[in-house]
Amino acid sequence: MVRDGAVSGGATPSHPTAETVARACLTAVASPGDPAMGRAIATHGAVAVWRAVREERPLAAPSERDASGFAVRLRRWRARAQRVDGEALLARADDLGVRVAVPGDPEWPRQLDDLAEARPYALWMRGARDLRHCCLRSVAVVGSRAASSYGLHATGELCYALAERGWVTVSGGAYGIDGAAHRAALTGGAATVAVLACGLDVAYPRGHENLFADVGSAGVLVTEHPPGTLPSRHAFLVRNRLIAALTPGTVVVEAGPRSGALNTASHARELCRTLMAVPGPVTSALSSGCHRLLRDFQAVCVTEAADVIEQVGQIGADLRPQTATVLDPAELDELSRRVLAALPQRTTVGTATVAAAAEVDLDTALRTLGVLAAGGFVERGETGWRARSAP
Amino acid sequence: MVRDGAVSGGATPSHPTAETVARACLTAVASPGDPAMGRAIATHGAVAVWRAVREERPLAAPSERDASGFAVRLRRWRARAQRVDGEALLARADDLGVRVAVPGDPEWPRQLDDLAEARPYALWMRGARDLRHCCLRSVAVVGSRAASSYGLHATGELCYALAERGWVTVSGGAYGIDGAAHRAALTGGAATVAVLACGLDVAYPRGHENLFADVGSAGVLVTEHPPGTLPSRHAFLVRNRLIAALTPGTVVVEAGPRSGALNTASHARELCRTLMAVPGPVTSALSSGCHRLLRDFQAVCVTEAADVIEQVGQIGADLRPQTATVLDPAELDELSRRVLAALPQRTTVGTATVAAAAEVDLDTALRTLGVLAAGGFVERGETGWRARSAP
Repeated sequence: MVRDGAVSGGATPSHPTAETVARACLTAVASPGDPAMGRAIATHGAVAVWRAVREERPLAAPSERDASGFAVRLRRWRARAQRVDGEALLARADDLGVRVAVPGDPEWPRQLDDLAEARPYALWMRGARDLRHCCLRSVAVVGSRAASSYGLHATGELCYALAERGWVTVSGGAYGIDGAAHRAALTGGAATVAVLACGLDVAYPRGHENLFADVGSAGVLVTEHPPGTLPSRHAFLVRNRLIAALTPGTVVVEAGPRSGALNTASHARELCRTLMAVPGPVTSALSSGCHRLLRDFQAVCVTEAADVIEQVGQIGADLRPQTATVLDPAELDELSRRVLAALPQRTTVGTATVAAAAEVDLDTALRTLGVLAAGGFVERGETGWRARSAP
Repeated sequence: MVRDGAVSGGATPSHPTAETVARACLTAVASPGDPAMGRAIATHGAVAVWRAVREERPLAAPSERDASGFAVRLRRWRARAQRVDGEALLARADDLGVRVAVPGDPEWPRQLDDLAEARPYALWMRGARDLRHCCLRSVAVVGSRAASSYGLHATGELCYALAERGWVTVSGGAYGIDGAAHRAALTGGAATVAVLACGLDVAYPRGHENLFADVGSAGVLVTEHPPGTLPSRHAFLVRNRLIAALTPGTVVVEAGPRSGALNTASHARELCRTLMAVPGPVTSALSSGCHRLLRDFQAVCVTEAADVIEQVGQIGADLRPQTATVLDPAELDELSRRVLAALPQRTTVGTATVAAAAEVDLDTALRTLGVLAAGGFVERGETGWRARSAP
């Protein structure tokens, strides 16, 4: 019997459909997320597009906006397609334990549809867990490669606690925050999803080879690139949209003013995902990107797993109770506490009722309510007194 | 010649009006900010209220909501009024170099009208500068007494830089953040306003006696309490509304989960002032209050003086230019940079125009634009390409 969400083998079904073969091949032909390819597939179907580029058949521009540049693109795709052998590509992936999923497959995460024309043509995956299932209760945790010990610590605490509560961490594969996120989540006993910007047979960075093996054992590695693809700077930026799209929310733990994590944040915002940032010392340049997200881009300030789950969790299943007041009633004297305790929060009551409930005389009740009102603990409405939530 | 905003002497005009005497005496009779007293003054006038309590004449409840408790209040006010001698009180203040201001006086800060019924009856002040003038370009900076070295450092940097740009710091008189705020602002060459919860002849806390003398020399000390009043816990909470009301915005630098600074924050929000918070390490309990303000109460994340001035400054006079992008175009290769530079930000242009401007062929322009689009640097509209602001 397999664990819930576990995948039975490492490979694509032994008889892949023409659609799967075509889309797998197209990942080797067009740049990931190229909207012209996205539109071509949407218009003509992946099989027709693949045949047209592979067999150099004519292919109409999918829309008027593609009219001017489509011939140029088609030439480039055709040139690359000549070097792609679908059967060999899938066989090689199979040998590597890499499977492929296309839209409509059970493992395909449907939230990627939000990427519209920039949706991946296919996904290459390796690992014990089902990608779609992993992402159901997941959150993206990203940040700088050159992280500070503070950032690494905050990442570790956050991802460990998320893992303990059954939340999957999605991140890249870089040194720094990405690596710390995977390690802490795996230690916390959860799956993680590593979204890579190269082929799954390319260990990049080299020092994360063992980490990627661990992610594969407990979670899943995923990429848009066919086996053999080396990473490029462009690929990292394009990859970031996948991290944002796979999850209901992205947490930026630490990011300098020009960190790539801010690119992921930008994708999260565009996709209407929840954008969160962990604050840090104002003296740290590595937190300045987070502070900018908080100040100018409506990121939610999160400091612990409970904050994150409150943002991305389901109402009822995940939300925690709200604390009622900021001011500590313990700061009040005994009499004031007694009167405060006698007040309802949602309805109002008259002074005499408060006096009776608090077992004090009317004069004392009135005086004490005045003190409490001035301190912001209670307020007087048209129909009487009530306790206030703070601040 | 006196400096702009400096006050000529330390004392109230030698012939105070009956209104001034009455309001000064009422500060010794009712708790500060008691809305029943505020309404009584609004209804009957301060002179009539003072005579009624001093000479035990009848006084009608100012409104129906006061009907039930007004007799009780009046009894208490009358008992206290018997011990108040208006002439002696003002003479004593004069001896101490303390002046009094009432609504309508040139030194009265009209923004206190926003407190409505909780507006002070009168203000007692000591110091070289005019309170109203000081508060024109001011910001409240508050935080915990038990501040961390991080909080003290952040406060110092912030208030020094605000002072250098001519902004006045308004704070309480406590140890910790309050004290650090005054010291840094004074060092930066600006006035500061210390809002105290006791009479101006009471040095509380004792260790700030010299600091208060410095504030008096360069700025102004202000309180609602007549000379001789000792501080009480209640007085601190009520005092916080003044700090919030005097300024267009309040910055909470460091605050534990139950800090009194959160009470000031709550007043700032109620008064529709700008609420700001300085983030700190998530590992510090002393920043947890600030993070809560950021997360749940729409406080603006500020990390330096420029952030604060952007929030409370006047458009045109104080605002700084926005930085254009988060992603560093320097991360791009030379070709991509060239194509990006050829693009307008506000209008769109066709691919051929971009190619010509970047001095590349059409194919290269199109390919490079695709890369830039995937990275979020450019976008394609119906009529052509344009550069994007990030994120």
